[in-house]
Amino acid sequence: MCQLLGMNCNVPTDIVFSFEGFRRRGGETDEHADGWGIAFFEDGGCRVFLDYLPSSISPVADLVKNYPIQSRNVIAHIRKATQGAVSLANTHPFQRELWGRYWLFAHNGNLAERPSLDDGRFTPVGSTDSEHAFCALLNQLSRHFGEPPSLADLHGAVADYAGTLSRSGTFNFLLSDGRALFAHCSTDLFYVVRESPFSTAHLSDADVSIDFARVTTPRDRVAVIATRPLTDNEDWTRMRSGELLCFVDGMPRPSPI
Amino acid sequence: MCQLLGMNCNVPTDIVFSFEGFRRRGGETDEHADGWGIAFFEDGGCRVFLDYLPSSISPVADLVKNYPIQSRNVIAHIRKATQGAVSLANTHPFQRELWGRYWLFAHNGNLAERPSLDDGRFTPVGSTDSEHAFCALLNQLSRHFGEPPSLADLHGAVADYAGTLSRSGTFNFLLSDGRALFAHCSTDLFYVVRESPFSTAHLSDADVSIDFARVTTPRDRVAVIATRPLTDNEDWTRMRSGELLCFVDGMPRPSPI
Repeated sequence: MCQLLGMNCNVPTDIVFSFEGFRRRGGETDEHADGWGIAFFEDGGCRVFLDYLPSSISPVADLVKNYPIQSRNVIAHIRKATQGAVSLANTHPFQRELWGRYWLFAHNGNLAERPSLDDGRFTPVGSTDSEHAFCALLNQLSRHFGEPPSLADLHGAVADYAGTLSRSGTFNFLLSDGRALFAHCSTDLFYVVRESPFSTAHLSDADVSIDFARVTTPRDRVAVIATRPLTDNEDWTRMRSGELLCFVDGMPRPSPI
Repeated sequence: MCQLLGMNCNVPTDIVFSFEGFRRRGGETDEHADGWGIAFFEDGGCRVFLDYLPSSISPVADLVKNYPIQSRNVIAHIRKATQGAVSLANTHPFQRELWGRYWLFAHNGNLAERPSLDDGRFTPVGSTDSEHAFCALLNQLSRHFGEPPSLADLHGAVADYAGTLSRSGTFNFLLSDGRALFAHCSTDLFYVVRESPFSTAHLSDADVSIDFARVTTPRDRVAVIATRPLTDNEDWTRMRSGELLCFVDGMPRPSPI
């Protein structure tokens, strides 16, 4: 399987601290060593850093650690290959454009059946079930909505799709169009919301601490979402199976009914 | 304006030497300091590195210099903003997916009129004339061809489009779908083909030389395309205005009639 990391904030924030723990699970503290990637939304655009080296030793991961990119929506993924060879074409997050916005997607799990692409405009480049599911989702959204939907309508449509697809396997995923970050839990996804009064956090995967009170302002709010909690002294909330949260400005909105 | 750099090879090759000269034109030896980007096709996938810092001082450019990525098709761009603010959304190369392949595009020039998007599936995210032209091209290709065309048919269609668009301004561009690299010249584009017997090349923008005989095999062939020659001791061929070359395996195929 793989592991996911996401961040959603009300002001542009760097992910260096969380990434420092997360990257070690790619070959050092855990086995997810078949490539990795991280994507940042910035200024309406986005940039995606990918590498097929393990994140624990990747020079691209060194760059991400040393160059604190400020972003309100971040998605990262470390891979343990189940379907599809180790190659750049199979490395998450995957990126597409729809309605003049970039969309990013990363998946943890394994789907026994691949959903129909319905002759839609989005086609996978690589051979993973994950990219296939992402393309099927975008095909469904572009067919369903004649024009860009509101966030609430989008939330409902993504929840429907996630529910349907979850029947054919494990479908934990993170999805963002730069406005919000959607987090869907099949089996394993946790989150923590950091806000004032801030305290000190300590990584689970490295003896590294940070006092958030020193690097934030009282109005900052940051949600971090991960397959397994990244710190050992914060209260992480375990998401329920089937739940799709929509994070906006560092706060989760619950699954639509 | 901006500057372009492209590479097309018959075996995966790193672009470190050429990039070392090129990046200096982004704020050091020349004025193109409004962001930059470079994209590599690898294993059917691709990765794009973008930064809005000048390439001469960008940490991302340091990574590209120090991490020799092997690729058969590379497109790079340094920007001097004419249309659109300095932001990540306006940074070339731009990326889209069509027919299960990634497409990359970078432009040097300025278009007085923006071509129609024809209600097509590709929509710009940023505000540049360049990304707009790229989306219009892909809309036209996806409408024109019911299925992925041969390289010869694609060459013809891209040449038609480039000819039409060139009437509204300067339209030097590089385009690749990972199989070939298309280079269109309105005003300024040069190329050199390096093949056996290899010799030593010396950069124009830095006192750096490389003996290609030491880092190649006799069957390697590499074409480098740039807005201005990157070396001062090789024979660069100046492309003609209106010419669209299709580089495959390090060799240019001429414009279709």
